[in-house]
Amino acid sequence: MTASAPSAGGPGRAGPPLDLNADLGEGFGRWALTDDEALLSVVTSANVACGFHAGDPSTMRRVCELAAARGVRIGAQVSYRDLAGFGRRAMDVPARELADEIAYQIGALEVFARAAGSRVAYVKPHGALYNRVVRDEEQAAAVVEGTLLASGGRRLPVLGLPGSRLLGAAEAAGLPAVPEAFADRAYTAEGTLVPRGRPGAVVEDGAEVVARSLLMALERRVVAAGGEKIEVRARSLCLHGDTPGAAALARRIRAELTAAGVVPEPFA
Amino acid sequence: MTASAPSAGGPGRAGPPLDLNADLGEGFGRWALTDDEALLSVVTSANVACGFHAGDPSTMRRVCELAAARGVRIGAQVSYRDLAGFGRRAMDVPARELADEIAYQIGALEVFARAAGSRVAYVKPHGALYNRVVRDEEQAAAVVEGTLLASGGRRLPVLGLPGSRLLGAAEAAGLPAVPEAFADRAYTAEGTLVPRGRPGAVVEDGAEVVARSLLMALERRVVAAGGEKIEVRARSLCLHGDTPGAAALARRIRAELTAAGVVPEPFA
Amino acid sequence: MTASAPSAGGPGRAGPPLDLNADLGEGFGRWALTDDEALLSVVTSANVACGFHAGDPSTMRRVCELAAARGVRIGAQVSYRDLAGFGRRAMDVPARELADEIAYQIGALEVFARAAGSRVAYVKPHGALYNRVVRDEEQAAAVVEGTLLASGGRRLPVLGLPGSRLLGAAEAAGLPAVPEAFADRAYTAEGTLVPRGRPGAVVEDGAEVVARSLLMALERRVVAAGGEKIEVRARSLCLHGDTPGAAALARRIRAELTAAGVVPEPFA
Amino acid sequence: MTASAPSAGGPGRAGPPLDLNADLGEGFGRWALTDDEALLSVVTSANVACGFHAGDPSTMRRVCELAAARGVRIGAQVSYRDLAGFGRRAMDVPARELADEIAYQIGALEVFARAAGSRVAYVKPHGALYNRVVRDEEQAAAVVEGTLLASGGRRLPVLGLPGSRLLGAAEAAGLPAVPEAFADRAYTAEGTLVPRGRPGAVVEDGAEVVARSLLMALERRVVAAGGEKIEVRARSLCLHGDTPGAAALARRIRAELTAAGVVPEPFA
Repeated sequence: MTASAPSAGGPGRAGPPLDLNADLGEGFGRWALTDDEALLSVVTSANVACGFHAGDPSTMRRVCELAAARGVRIGAQVSYRDLAGFGRRAMDVPARELADEIAYQIGALEVFARAAGSRVAYVKPHGALYNRVVRDEEQAAAVVEGTLLASGGRRLPVLGLPGSRLLGAAEAAGLPAVPEAFADRAYTAEGTLVPRGRPGAVVEDGAEVVARSLLMALERRVVAAGGEKIEVRARSLCLHGDTPGAAALARRIRAELTAAGVVPEPFA
Repeated sequence: MTASAPSAGGPGRAGPPLDLNADLGEGFGRWALTDDEALLSVVTSANVACGFHAGDPSTMRRVCELAAARGVRIGAQVSYRDLAGFGRRAMDVPARELADEIAYQIGALEVFARAAGSRVAYVKPHGALYNRVVRDEEQAAAVVEGTLLASGGRRLPVLGLPGSRLLGAAEAAGLPAVPEAFADRAYTAEGTLVPRGRPGAVVEDGAEVVARSLLMALERRVVAAGGEKIEVRARSLCLHGDTPGAAALARRIRAELTAAGVVPEPFA
Repeated sequence: MTASAPSAGGPGRAGPPLDLNADLGEGFGRWALTDDEALLSVVTSANVACGFHAGDPSTMRRVCELAAARGVRIGAQVSYRDLAGFGRRAMDVPARELADEIAYQIGALEVFARAAGSRVAYVKPHGALYNRVVRDEEQAAAVVEGTLLASGGRRLPVLGLPGSRLLGAAEAAGLPAVPEAFADRAYTAEGTLVPRGRPGAVVEDGAEVVARSLLMALERRVVAAGGEKIEVRARSLCLHGDTPGAAALARRIRAELTAAGVVPEPFA
Repeated sequence: MTASAPSAGGPGRAGPPLDLNADLGEGFGRWALTDDEALLSVVTSANVACGFHAGDPSTMRRVCELAAARGVRIGAQVSYRDLAGFGRRAMDVPARELADEIAYQIGALEVFARAAGSRVAYVKPHGALYNRVVRDEEQAAAVVEGTLLASGGRRLPVLGLPGSRLLGAAEAAGLPAVPEAFADRAYTAEGTLVPRGRPGAVVEDGAEVVARSLLMALERRVVAAGGEKIEVRARSLCLHGDTPGAAALARRIRAELTAAGVVPEPFA
């Protein structure tokens, strides 16, 4: 949470402050996935799984306690109800039903955030839902409706892809829309993510991930799959924590960003 | 809901005010079970299923909206995680895990209660958990811990069997302990419920259920399975809503209680 | 299972034999939906839910026992894994995963069919999966692959919409493809079903359902939503059993079909 | 797998042949737990999770294919329906319901075993169910009933603790009862396992696990928690695969057993 002096890695290099977010608590019962403790020493925002694609109550509680103790913000990582598919299978959920499922998840997480002395501070869809609401207006509106339903009057920010229907719907409803970029995902020329499963969808090489992170942070740009540099307006950078070595890579990215004068800082 | 003047059905007959509670929202997705609308015109407290034994998010929302519109209080009907067994199969859940599962359910319901302009006003365990915490000190404490965890400083009342470990643990934790009686369940001489499945566990005859309700309300007594009258100190009377004709019977019980001078009134 | 002499309701009226199928065992644990006993006295083929959208093991066993005792054939009614949505929410399940999920369901049902002295005799997708495989070639192939995987060399027939990708994939794999018609569903001019949720998607009027059933059985035609008569080549007629009065209507349809000389008879 | 000549590691040392079993396929969807490939090169019998505590269809299929390719026998590792608790929370499931749940799991696995050219060759309860049927006569009988229900006339062996109600019920029903010992679990003086969660319940030290395995294999004895040597009549030895280093340890145990003249060989 350091922050302070935008020290700068040289004239013109220091970018605006950048939030670092990662998916946490993505185990379920006996199964663990993310190295929550390690990642919580790196990120400024924790996307906590709420039980629909991952995240049992005890894991949710523990991650909230750890996050609160470190001053990391807690966000609700909401999903389709799909444990078997880890929320990666898009579902045609009717809007009303989806809104209620989103609200349910946020409410459950809020209990553990509050018990830890914090609050749910934002909402971010997971997996297939994240991708679906880039273009699906109805489901995007449902996610926003569920967020409003659960927020009790607070204006909870919504995290999503720049230009997505989700961010549009959030803005239209008066909620802060926070665009994010992905350190290790390939982009199409249009600025959407190359779908998982396609070759090269995930950037595996650590040095390249670091380089892309710096480019995103300092220039708000990324090299798309076709080779062209495109603009990626992002206020937050998403790091991944569900692969071996992910925590170490995340730590390195934070260090390099800081060295380059980019201040890791939660969005407002 | 507050019924005004304890008019009295004659000298010495009028009992103290009595809360009427019933389990509501016990469907799941395509499946319905309870006639929620009819019961909400009878009870003063609604035990709303929270998704672990029954209760999908959209049903929870709808029941909360109906309850709030009618001035009926909303309680969290918490359960073991057991959709296939409808929460009727006792489980050896470790205390910490159970507390977290309870808190999760309360938090999820709170969202819909608040969105409807109300709040979760009390907690009542369901099915096998209800019976387990009559004697199981560790699980009783876990239910109370989960309630505290989810209540954000409010002192949420806990509903249970008179003399149960659950009510003892609630009192020890400073939470209001509300004893309840069952209109249609057989009692042992010790004042516990005859377990479902045993012959005669559920009183089927409507007239008898009404007579028992009156005896409970006016004399705080019940005829146990062996024939002896025993004391049943109860502040709330549980009506059932999951059988055909249940709503009609509940309506009749309320009418007869009112005629006898018993005021249906939520517990404090 | 009567069958035999195509008695005839007059010259030129008697149609070819027709299978009658219905969805059965669509409860889950405490929840019931279909009147299984009543429907089993009407249909010649029972589509038994296998646990993914409905159907707990004890219900599966009981329905198989009843079906076997009455000589009704048992089919596996396979679905997306979606209890909360009753299998009515289309899902983007990868082909391999879907095939394995189909096989799992068939295998589980086979145990109860065999224990009752019968076998799983065919496969029919449920709900959103049924609709999806009308056009989705990949998922259609996956359903067929799962069927082959589970059938141990037997050539299990596959039930579906005439002209669907599913029936095409079944035929291509050497499995008998059995087209079916729906007694109470509205059709588009192209011969697909008007999606649930659209006005008029389900024909509510009993007399009209009976008339449509007769037209389908005798002329293999149906009046589409726009009013035009279209061809519906079907070897089986699907009756519904999940609404009040459904069993009575099914009985009436069978009686009228029989009176018109249509022999209710399982497909080969 | 069949190792031939009981070569002997010296006079009097070679024990009777011993089956080596381990729990496999205990992931679920995105989550993995056991190093299935490595363990399948060690064990002679694979206890494959069937979906109730772990084990999605695709994992079940893959493990069956690997096991069949290596000549390792496939067993159904059946469990309470409890994904969130990994089947480690005892449940009061009524006997009939439990039998049906067991049969369902075996049937689902059988599909993948057959598709891989093998069959389900035995049944072993998992976790809390395993412990429960040591003494619970009703649930032990239910596991056996479920096994009979699913076995279609085959006499499937049942694996369990020596002296358990489960093995008694299996024998009474005419099924082969196979007693097993645990390489890395502490024993009480009565020959039952020290419950997980108690200090010392799991033997962590690799050298000690190896020594205990040799003692069990060569002398059919084990050092109980109190220090006394007790008899452990076992035809199979259970190795664990769900901890880091488990596969390496399992490999070492097999090597030492073989060196001591114990032939790893499936039970009849």
